Amino acid sequence: MTNPHTDATGIAVTTGPIPGSRKTYLTSAYGDPVPVREVPLDPESPGTALRLDDPSGPYTECAPAIDVARGLDRRRTAWIVERGDTAQQNARMPVPQDQEPTGPAFPQAPLPRAAPEGVAATQMAHARAGRVTREMAVAAARENLARMQPEGFADGAAAPRAITAEDVRRAVAAGQAILPANVNHPESEPMVIGSAFRTKVNANLGTSPVTSNIGSEVDKMVWAARWGADTVMDLSTGAGISATREWILRNAPVPVGTVPIYQAVERVGGRPQDLTWAAFRDTLIEQAEQGVDYMTIHAGVLRAHLPRARNRVTGIVSRGGAILAAWCEHHGRENFLYDNFSEICRILQRYDVTISLGDGLRPGCTADANDAAQMAELATLGELTRVAHAFDVQVMIEGPGHVPLHRIAENVTRQREACGDVPFYTLGPLATDVAPGHDHITGAIGGALIGQAGTAMLCYVTPKEHLGLPERDDVKEGLIAFRIAAHAADLAKGHPAARLWDDALSRARYAFRWDEQFRLAMDPERARAFHDATLPKDAQKDAPYCAMCGPRFCAMRISQDVADAAAAGAGAGPG
Amino acid sequence: MTNPHTDATGIAVTTGPIPGSRKTYLTSAYGDPVPVREVPLDPESPGTALRLDDPSGPYTECAPAIDVARGLDRRRTAWIVERGDTAQQNARMPVPQDQEPTGPAFPQAPLPRAAPEGVAATQMAHARAGRVTREMAVAAARENLARMQPEGFADGAAAPRAITAEDVRRAVAAGQAILPANVNHPESEPMVIGSAFRTKVNANLGTSPVTSNIGSEVDKMVWAARWGADTVMDLSTGAGISATREWILRNAPVPVGTVPIYQAVERVGGRPQDLTWAAFRDTLIEQAEQGVDYMTIHAGVLRAHLPRARNRVTGIVSRGGAILAAWCEHHGRENFLYDNFSEICRILQRYDVTISLGDGLRPGCTADANDAAQMAELATLGELTRVAHAFDVQVMIEGPGHVPLHRIAENVTRQREACGDVPFYTLGPLATDVAPGHDHITGAIGGALIGQAGTAMLCYVTPKEHLGLPERDDVKEGLIAFRIAAHAADLAKGHPAARLWDDALSRARYAFRWDEQFRLAMDPERARAFHDATLPKDAQKDAPYCAMCGPRFCAMRISQDVADAAAAGAGAGPG
Repeated sequence: MTNPHTDATGIAVTTGPIPGSRKTYLTSAYGDPVPVREVPLDPESPGTALRLDDPSGPYTECAPAIDVARGLDRRRTAWIVERGDTAQQNARMPVPQDQEPTGPAFPQAPLPRAAPEGVAATQMAHARAGRVTREMAVAAARENLARMQPEGFADGAAAPRAITAEDVRRAVAAGQAILPANVNHPESEPMVIGSAFRTKVNANLGTSPVTSNIGSEVDKMVWAARWGADTVMDLSTGAGISATREWILRNAPVPVGTVPIYQAVERVGGRPQDLTWAAFRDTLIEQAEQGVDYMTIHAGVLRAHLPRARNRVTGIVSRGGAILAAWCEHHGRENFLYDNFSEICRILQRYDVTISLGDGLRPGCTADANDAAQMAELATLGELTRVAHAFDVQVMIEGPGHVPLHRIAENVTRQREACGDVPFYTLGPLATDVAPGHDHITGAIGGALIGQAGTAMLCYVTPKEHLGLPERDDVKEGLIAFRIAAHAADLAKGHPAARLWDDALSRARYAFRWDEQFRLAMDPERARAFHDATLPKDAQKDAPYCAMCGPRFCAMRISQDVADAAAAGAGAGPG
Repeated sequence: MTNPHTDATGIAVTTGPIPGSRKTYLTSAYGDPVPVREVPLDPESPGTALRLDDPSGPYTECAPAIDVARGLDRRRTAWIVERGDTAQQNARMPVPQDQEPTGPAFPQAPLPRAAPEGVAATQMAHARAGRVTREMAVAAARENLARMQPEGFADGAAAPRAITAEDVRRAVAAGQAILPANVNHPESEPMVIGSAFRTKVNANLGTSPVTSNIGSEVDKMVWAARWGADTVMDLSTGAGISATREWILRNAPVPVGTVPIYQAVERVGGRPQDLTWAAFRDTLIEQAEQGVDYMTIHAGVLRAHLPRARNRVTGIVSRGGAILAAWCEHHGRENFLYDNFSEICRILQRYDVTISLGDGLRPGCTADANDAAQMAELATLGELTRVAHAFDVQVMIEGPGHVPLHRIAENVTRQREACGDVPFYTLGPLATDVAPGHDHITGAIGGALIGQAGTAMLCYVTPKEHLGLPERDDVKEGLIAFRIAAHAADLAKGHPAARLWDDALSRARYAFRWDEQFRLAMDPERARAFHDATLPKDAQKDAPYCAMCGPRFCAMRISQDVADAAAAGAGAGPG
């Protein structure tokens, strides 16, 4: 079904439509394209097609003209230029020699744009000034699919509420939502993250010193977007970090996040104690110029919080948190990210990099959940949120981790108390520690619950969590599990477009329109393959039963016979 | 790791220990064996081993003497005889010719036992008379593992509360728990189902007219128990139903449930309208004599409820519910299971068959969740519960199905209002309809939530749900997903033994005792295989990092260095 596209560089990415769907584009209030996965419906169904949000980029078009060495179209450049608050720079900041890539360099990396010092070129600044950006209009349209279905789609007409560009503007202005869109990542398709909107899913990828290479990470990024990643984080460590990131950014249709301290540590020889503010600052600027849309900053790991983590079962399990704890303990000084936080904001506001305030002290096991260390850091993150907002820098807050079910909602409550309605972005959480190898499931359980409670974006967990670096298959499994969790949360929260999808699929199921059911499935390939495993023939795709119960025992078939008989009886008169 | 055992019959089942664990037996208050999976711990760990509940039967012993054609030891026979309330019958009830098995008959099927007419030989009758049975003592010990750990296990000593045989007796007497243990299934190991106890998981299996055979279903039963099925339901349809069930029962270490109406319909030629009370009654007796421990009875599908299901998106999706609706509509009469419910209880009380009151009108999609049809049937199930309890017949209540997250808890609340604290047994529920092929995950999400809310047993859903009959691999995937859900619920509910497992695994993880972590995993094979995929060498099983982050970036290693430095600093004096 999928068609691996190999470039002259030897980098292969998957292209072609999601089976049974067609990629199409609607139009935003400003006339810009709004990407949509359109699933054609059978003539018996209400409406001709169901439209679903689609973060997969042009890769899923019918015959996409993909050139990985050129990158995606930089559509947003014109929008950014039009706003007039940034200027193209003459060159990127020189990268230190020790950071020269070991992999092939991306040909013709674009020159960076930036706002003048002291100017915030952020979506938040525009929102607060009352301006609806083109990005906001596209992001709003993607949330408004309940009202952007083809004519004749009965449910669409009954959608409870419209989501408008002004809704997005207001939420971004208030800090209740973020629209991560670095001016140097014009390839990205705008989307909004906030608890009033569709629950988003992030996929982590990136090289590790032990395994993987640039090509495989670009492929994983495209693959992740294909399976519904709303954003990706490039967590590369080891050699060639900058080069890997450049390839990913130039080809990424979704916002890209990073954790800059990983690269900063590499830059000082891998020794946390040798980190300096200068080395970190240069890394920030380099990544902002490349186009990273959001960056995890562990500025809340304060010296005073560390003793609270000492009696934990699993100590500090965030890489960034552990690095900064080591630095603080070694130098006997306060976390330099905290001390320089205003400076960080002054840099990031020029590019519109969103800050994802990292939870360096998140719990690494259910026993450590919601403990004093975690909550102390959360209070600091609230303080930092107010600082960033003063610079018109967009902010989200990272959350756990490992949390038993009965303590999950408290995380959202406490986050709101500490940080206001700033979007919450959690890693799972995993509802138990006992299932390594299946942690996409432990994480999807916790993720669904914390999503329902108001978390705006879930970071996926793959089956390889705790055991190794995820491969392509793991990326897909993790994404499906977390998209299920996010969609279950949206149904529960009443996102206006969520219900349409369930009802369309259930109608297809009840009417034995097997092909339509497969097309509507979150994973059309898997659904069809499983049905084929026992009933492979074409004729069986119209059969009013499946191999689970067989012809005689199909409840839905019997139920329909009963309904038909009742209807006939009703037609014939009373009784 | 596993060693398929092939019998002279050609039926192959998996035997041998779960990798890294040893099967052992503790002793109940009455001196009977209590099955346990014992995971040896490294010398650095508190305690020498962690003991986990183990429903897998003797198959996971080191060198089990399994003879599938002979069946498991009938250990409980002596206990049952000792109670003196049943007598061995001279023969089984003759089975109608049309039900002759098409597969091989189990050699030497045992003669049945039964109590005299009007006598309840049930665990509930004994419990109400104040008698603690041997079964109750074993079931209690299995729940009391927090206090039955090896000496030196620090957490065990701190367990919040003991669970005693008297606790089990009291709960069974009150109808708050069931101990499914047909006197004709003496091969089973006693276990208790109730919201005060460990959340249980059921695995469905059985032949279908389209696919599968007796041998594969016996294999799946042993395989299901190996992966933690606390009970199995044999949902066989098509030919050879009785023969299949006999093989399963004689080899099942766990309670076995059925839905007798499936076989009754086969017996009348597959036409629901031809069902009679006599045909159903004979099926009940036949299955009770074979040893079925619990039976789903759809006695709550009343004529008056049916119109409420007519405007649903997916009508009636329970097979039993659809069959009975068809019967009622055809005859214009009340459900004969409802009309004969007292007679059903009079039969089942003689064998101690637990009634699982089926939810024939459960919702088949999230749109139909918690609707009037479902709730009307639930009220009827409450009425029937009181009837069954008057006969000292044990009862549990079946629940949905497909339910969005925000409507899940209401199911438990309403079930309690209607039926009292009778154990609730739900199928999932699936938190969304859109992911066929991955419904073990949608079901595990809903299952964890409804388990936390007090559901006593979760019926698993496999990845094949809605698409085909589950194979061996699907059975395992479904079980792991639902055991994760059940364990997450137990952690949240505070089951005293739940916490021990998480903490033991987390300690192993933090200390990089990789082998210990694999042994403690719910799925040791998968955990090790995933780690091997990138770091296969033995030496890497002691490495203080994994392939996800590599040596430099392991948060837990850095965190430990920090802790060590802090400890050393503390030892050296103030500062």
